[in-house]
Amino acid sequence: MTSIQDQHIKLAHGNGGRFMRELIDNLFAHHLHNPLLDTNTDAAILPLNQDIMVTTDGFTVKPLEFPGGNIGSLAVHGTVNDLCVSGAIPKYLTLNAFIEEGLEISKLDRIIASLATAAKEANVVVVAGDTKILERGEGGGLYLATTGIGIREKKLGMEQISASDVILVSGPIGDHGTAVMLAREQFGMRGDLQSDSANVLPLAQALWQIPGLKFMRDPTRGGLASVLHEICHVTGLTAKLFETQVPINDPVRSVCEMLGYDPYYLACEGRIVAIVAAEQADMALTTLQKFPAGQKAAKIGVLSTGKPHLILETELGGERFLEQLEDEPLPRIC
Amino acid sequence: MTSIQDQHIKLAHGNGGRFMRELIDNLFAHHLHNPLLDTNTDAAILPLNQDIMVTTDGFTVKPLEFPGGNIGSLAVHGTVNDLCVSGAIPKYLTLNAFIEEGLEISKLDRIIASLATAAKEANVVVVAGDTKILERGEGGGLYLATTGIGIREKKLGMEQISASDVILVSGPIGDHGTAVMLAREQFGMRGDLQSDSANVLPLAQALWQIPGLKFMRDPTRGGLASVLHEICHVTGLTAKLFETQVPINDPVRSVCEMLGYDPYYLACEGRIVAIVAAEQADMALTTLQKFPAGQKAAKIGVLSTGKPHLILETELGGERFLEQLEDEPLPRIC
Repeated sequence: MTSIQDQHIKLAHGNGGRFMRELIDNLFAHHLHNPLLDTNTDAAILPLNQDIMVTTDGFTVKPLEFPGGNIGSLAVHGTVNDLCVSGAIPKYLTLNAFIEEGLEISKLDRIIASLATAAKEANVVVVAGDTKILERGEGGGLYLATTGIGIREKKLGMEQISASDVILVSGPIGDHGTAVMLAREQFGMRGDLQSDSANVLPLAQALWQIPGLKFMRDPTRGGLASVLHEICHVTGLTAKLFETQVPINDPVRSVCEMLGYDPYYLACEGRIVAIVAAEQADMALTTLQKFPAGQKAAKIGVLSTGKPHLILETELGGERFLEQLEDEPLPRIC
Repeated sequence: MTSIQDQHIKLAHGNGGRFMRELIDNLFAHHLHNPLLDTNTDAAILPLNQDIMVTTDGFTVKPLEFPGGNIGSLAVHGTVNDLCVSGAIPKYLTLNAFIEEGLEISKLDRIIASLATAAKEANVVVVAGDTKILERGEGGGLYLATTGIGIREKKLGMEQISASDVILVSGPIGDHGTAVMLAREQFGMRGDLQSDSANVLPLAQALWQIPGLKFMRDPTRGGLASVLHEICHVTGLTAKLFETQVPINDPVRSVCEMLGYDPYYLACEGRIVAIVAAEQADMALTTLQKFPAGQKAAKIGVLSTGKPHLILETELGGERFLEQLEDEPLPRIC
């Protein structure tokens, strides 16, 4: 727990003076301390000399805390996972916090503690950070941005994808999106559904061993359908999903039916979509299923020549197009 | 100019679907394209194998556009300068944009174009990015976060500072803070004062050649006084500033007198505070004065043993303490 005297963030926590120093030392550095993070310098030195990958992500999830995580753990998982699915072992993070005046410091403390735990579990260290305080009413509580730096271990890319490749997913889809939605009071619903927010490195590293692995992506904003749209768009191939094969947890399915959401568009924060050569798809599936987080992994579709469309083969054998998202169904989900 | 059809940002620009893709391709990638930035990947590869430094900074300046720059150019200068004063040549940036629903797309376009120009001038490339759309009323227009990665060329640090070292500044202080303040309608004032927002790499590189250079910092949020407070805090030394020596442009001085601000606390975004061994202070000064941006550079103070205080010797020969900032005099200045 932080030793800051104030209970709420004030504008003076952003002014470069004593209160800002206290916020950084007693809260951020308290949770994130490591030999590379020096709050007295402007830039951190990274002892790297290999193939370096870098990624960045912003986080605006509302509410800030939700079943299965909070914006802090999410900001680690989201960025770490982007490196993992790109074939890199995550090593370093930078952190930006945009904090709204009036935010409860105890809540900020829980969130940064959770971020620190998630970073520790993912074996990454926060090497640089910055805080800005936003005036009351201009900040939505807290926004975070994390940049991740890692070492490439496996070369993957959409250019490796070809017709007949198989689409796999490492677990049920839509849990994060649904859990966040239910945590919003406006829906007047409560469930025991947890976000799937997690570090996917163990799953990714296991998949890297499979020579037929072509490409991976974590289906966050826009969900499974949006990842497959990007693949269709870039490769020119048709993607077909089999409705009966896509793993969806029962509470997610129920909520989607009740509220009219399509689960294929809902965000996950701890899943991998993998494109694997057909002859090694079963090996990839078995590999995933050895992990607790991969027990419900499944082969869910195939790629083929044709127009760059995403088609869902329904339970009854019919087909429907899954179109690109137009309206925003659910803002501030990640 | 962007080819986006919409005139205002809408929530659908953040949903992972077609509008988000259009915003990224037709606006962000349009301005920032370079061989390393691939909007189809989750992480960029950096061809580096030297001493790598990394820094990160958030930007919330209000108004978004001000005389002498905008939040886009500022987001480049702020982060690039943190690397420069740390002894590194900036190479790569990542960019996070938190965009409020309703922001004029033409304004966003100007800002990102300006960011791209500033990056080009600073010889850095944006290798990864992310956009999030905030609901109307929750975003203050636009917030940016940039992470900078560079190669270390010169080893500097507060631990090198010792008593009798001289404090230099590369130009007049407070221009950025004052220009932003005047650009806010609430003050009902207009001036031709420009922000000093600029890339300090040329000045920094010249100073790196001076063996007696101990430490540099760019006096942004909290201004010159806050940089010196940090030095006093870490080294335990007393810093003394000579009021008559500190370069301050006339309009800044006038505004400060009118509004009761102390210029020592106002942000600069294109200045360097340098700590140099006494015997080489004149060489450092001459070096700075060779640059147009360094013509008003000055030796402004000295460090000495004593209590870790910042003291201003006034024009009349008296002394007053410059205390650490407590209240926030001017939020959202950077």
